[in-house]
Order: sequence, then C-alpha cells, then structure tokens
Amino acid sequence: MDRRQAIQSLGAAGVSIVTSLTLSDAQTTRPQPHPNGYDPTVPPRPGSHPRHDMSHYNIPTQRQTVITLTYPGLSALDLVGAQQILCRMGNAEVRLVWKTKDVISTDTDIDIRPSDTFGDVEDEATILFVPGGSTGVSDVIGDDKVLDYLVKCAKKAKYIASTGSGSLILGAAGLLTGYKAAGHWTTRDLLAGFGAHPVEQRIVTDRNRVTAAGCTGSIDFALHLVTVLRNANMAAALALANEYAPQVIHSTGTPRTAPQAVTEMEWAMNAGLRDELREAIESARIRRKV
Amino acid sequence: MDRRQAIQSLGAAGVSIVTSLTLSDAQTTRPQPHPNGYDPTVPPRPGSHPRHDMSHYNIPTQRQTVITLTYPGLSALDLVGAQQILCRMGNAEVRLVWKTKDVISTDTDIDIRPSDTFGDVEDEATILFVPGGSTGVSDVIGDDKVLDYLVKCAKKAKYIASTGSGSLILGAAGLLTGYKAAGHWTTRDLLAGFGAHPVEQRIVTDRNRVTAAGCTGSIDFALHLVTVLRNANMAAALALANEYAPQVIHSTGTPRTAPQAVTEMEWAMNAGLRDELREAIESARIRRKV
Repeated sequence: MDRRQAIQSLGAAGVSIVTSLTLSDAQTTRPQPHPNGYDPTVPPRPGSHPRHDMSHYNIPTQRQTVITLTYPGLSALDLVGAQQILCRMGNAEVRLVWKTKDVISTDTDIDIRPSDTFGDVEDEATILFVPGGSTGVSDVIGDDKVLDYLVKCAKKAKYIASTGSGSLILGAAGLLTGYKAAGHWTTRDLLAGFGAHPVEQRIVTDRNRVTAAGCTGSIDFALHLVTVLRNANMAAALALANEYAPQVIHSTGTPRTAPQAVTEMEWAMNAGLRDELREAIESARIRRKV
Repeated sequence: MDRRQAIQSLGAAGVSIVTSLTLSDAQTTRPQPHPNGYDPTVPPRPGSHPRHDMSHYNIPTQRQTVITLTYPGLSALDLVGAQQILCRMGNAEVRLVWKTKDVISTDTDIDIRPSDTFGDVEDEATILFVPGGSTGVSDVIGDDKVLDYLVKCAKKAKYIASTGSGSLILGAAGLLTGYKAAGHWTTRDLLAGFGAHPVEQRIVTDRNRVTAAGCTGSIDFALHLVTVLRNANMAAALALANEYAPQVIHSTGTPRTAPQAVTEMEWAMNAGLRDELREAIESARIRRKV
C-alpha cells in the first residue's frame, strides 16, 4: 500500500485524526496563515465527516506528474531527496524520464533506471524538474534533443524547477532568461550566461520557476513544493515520515560559513568542471540564441 | 576526475591551501579538539610541504570499503544520503551489494542496480552498512542467506552501521544483541525483539555499532562517520560540497515536534508494516536463536 492509498484508506480504518490538525508558531518558521490559503486556526467545515475529510491535506482530485530529467552524470541526492518526498504528497507520481530506459550512471556511480522515455510523458507535466549533476550537465547542455524536450514539457508545466546545477540545464533550454535562479554554489554564477540572475539563496521562486541549492538542498526544495502544491500539513507529515530533524555537526554548508581553505579546495576541485561548463554554455547560447 | 583523484592532484595544480585549515567554534557545535585527535589549532608539521600535505584530511593509505546491503524495498534516501557522502571521503568506495546485479526496486519505485554480488566483496568491509526500508525489511529479516552474509561481513568490519529500519536487519542477524541502537521512529521500539536497546536519538554509537535515524538521517549519519573515519576538516568539506545548510520550514521531523494528529496519521499508516515486521521478527528470533 503506498502513501496515497494509505491516506485514502484511513477513513475505512476508522481513524479520525484530522480534527485537531494545527501547526503552532513554534512548529513552523513560516508566517501563518500560509500563502496558499490554508489556515490552521480554522476548524474543519461544519458537517464534514472527519473520517473522510482529507481537505486538511489539500490533495487534488486530478493526478499530478513530476517529470524528472534522469540523465547520465546527475547527482543522485539532487534527485532522490526530492523524489522520495514529492512521490508521497498524495495523488502525484514522479516519472524518471530519459531517452531510453537503459540504466544510467550518476556522478557517484549509483546506477538508476529511468521509468519512462521522452515520448511517454511529454504532455503531462505538473512539475518539470531537472536535478543537478557534475560532468553530465555539460553533455545535456550540448544536446538539443534533450533541451527541445524540456521546452515542450515546460509549455504545459505548472512549475519549472531544478536543484543544484540543474538550473544551468533549464537555462540552456531558454527557460530561465530574465528569471532569478538558484544553483549549486560552485557553478551558480554561470547562470548569467543564459540571461538568468543568480541568487545566493537555498530556494528561489520567480513566477513559476522554483530553483534550489543542490544535493541536500533537494529536501528543502521538495518540502517547499509540497507546501505550495498541498499545504503545511502535508509538508509537516512528510517531514515527519522522512525524519527531517537535521543535526548539523559542521555548519560549513555554504562558502560563507565554511573555513576559507575548505572553500578554496572545493573551488579548485571544480575548476575543470567550470571550464567544461563555460564552453558548453557559450556553445548553447550561440546555437540556441538564448 | 573523482574527488579522491582531485584531492591527490591538488598539489600538482599548485594549490596550497591546507596551511590555514581551522574550524572556529562558531563553525562547529562539537567540542574541540576532536576525539579523533585532530586539533585545528596545531599548525602543519614543520618541514612538510603544504602542496602535498594531505594530513589535514587524515586520508588512510589503505583503501576502505563500505559494504552497503542493497535490497528490494529499501528506502532510496536512506542509501543515497549516506552513499553520496561516504564515497567522497578519500580512498574509500561504497559497494552496493545484493544476491545478483539485477536492478532492484526501492520502496518509492526508484530502480537501482547493485554494483556487486555477495561473493564479490565479503572479506573487505571497513563499514558494513544496512540502509532502512519499508516493506522490504521483513523479507530480508526472513532470509537466512542475507543474514548469514551480514554475519560474515561483520566479523571483519571496523564499523557495523545502519540508517532507519536497517537496524532491525542488523538485529535479525544477531548483530545488535545487547547494544543500544537507533532506528526509524515508527519501528524503533521493535528492536527490543532482538535484545537491542532502542534509543530515541538521531545517531547512536555503542562500541563499533553506529545506527541512525532514517531517510534524511542518512546525511547526518554519513557526516558523523566521515568525522570519525577521517576528521572534522573532511566532514566540513563534504558538508560544503553537498550544500548542507538545511533550511527547515516545518520543524516537525520527530513525533515530539510534530502536531499530534500528524504523528497519529503516520503511526496509523505504518500499522500494517509494524504487524508484518512483528511477525518476521518473532520468526527470526526463534529460527536464529537471537
């Protein structure tokens, strides 16, 4: 039984738990009421039966699809941190899409099999999502077949989203021109090559573009999207299901908080990747007139 | 070029950055000097050449292996959050091991291909690591071939480790009897069935057993292990590389901080899984005399 089925069967199991759903100020750092209109201080509608009232989770009646570009050389955590949360938000599915269903290798050598090919899902995107990666990114930036597919999906997508260097791929497809965008700190500045405006934030929303930091950023990214697409209650439930109570031992996760020498080492290690990306970006910019 | 190669080639690139490596009190919540002996206030040894001195990262000369049990029904984030960090700690490799190299499906339907079979790596474990999962866990608890393999690996392993409900699998193999252990909050209490002592903590270390919370807990788990197996500098570098600066919108990641109704729903959703696990645990306890 998956989460959606479980949620839907809760009523049948006689569990009535939705009447006291509130998030106190201590439990959320986001101002209440939430921008999506959910107000935890408002009790359930009179007459609604709590055993069958899933309105507290704001699950849509129409199934939603997250089209996730699953390319060789992506960063597994950029993908999985988002996928594991988004696929459980109720009446949604995450499709891992690539040219073929052959297993692809990630940038840390975990092999993942795409669930669908481009032709299978191009008209169904609620969210078009491109996870970041390292060496694989410049190959995708150089591949018009992939970029054209993204453009096609983007036309129908409600949100166009990325983690880490995935924003560079969106940029190459011309989907971030004139937009503020986030990215992995090591390559974020290169977004300017596509006319995007790099912003040093964990999550950046500009109209329907939601771009985020990479790797571990995928978790915050997904919980943010769940809050927007569902509500704070569903995000709270998924934070609990995924035990999201980080215990940060080394608060060195950004170049501003890390010791300078550590930052310089990481920067130096990415010099080759940046050169490769610069070349791919310049070529895509001219080729595609971005 | 992978991280290890990059680290090793830093000298050749003329980058001399290791002389000023210090973690200030503001950057770490862990008391200094670190238990592994690294003291950031001590300058590099006189006469050492900073361009080639990697001693600040405490990378061992002997290659280390993380044997990771990669079973159908595991939770992808339990695995990937740890793998993506551990494989980059320098002179280490994470092997994804199962009975065959056929693609396995995780509990959220991401398909992952194991890198090795049991016979390939049984004598090489520096860390034996079992990620958590949902439905897949009771199958593994019922599978003596897998449990026997874990027992064999454990004999040579320096650390025996798990995330989430992976500790139940270690328990079934008899590897946690008399040990304190962590687990996913929804099934942690069941560890007592194997004579382990469940502890409500994100990371629990008891002698050479390191068990942790599930899903997002895998990131804290891996950074903790890197701190122990390398040092605080390497952990800081990997926190930076993985942009580990969590921005928690909903601090509802434990049953103590989540609204009661959300906790009750998650609990209710796991009732079937708990029944299944209880049965598998009872059977393994008798069968294997744990």
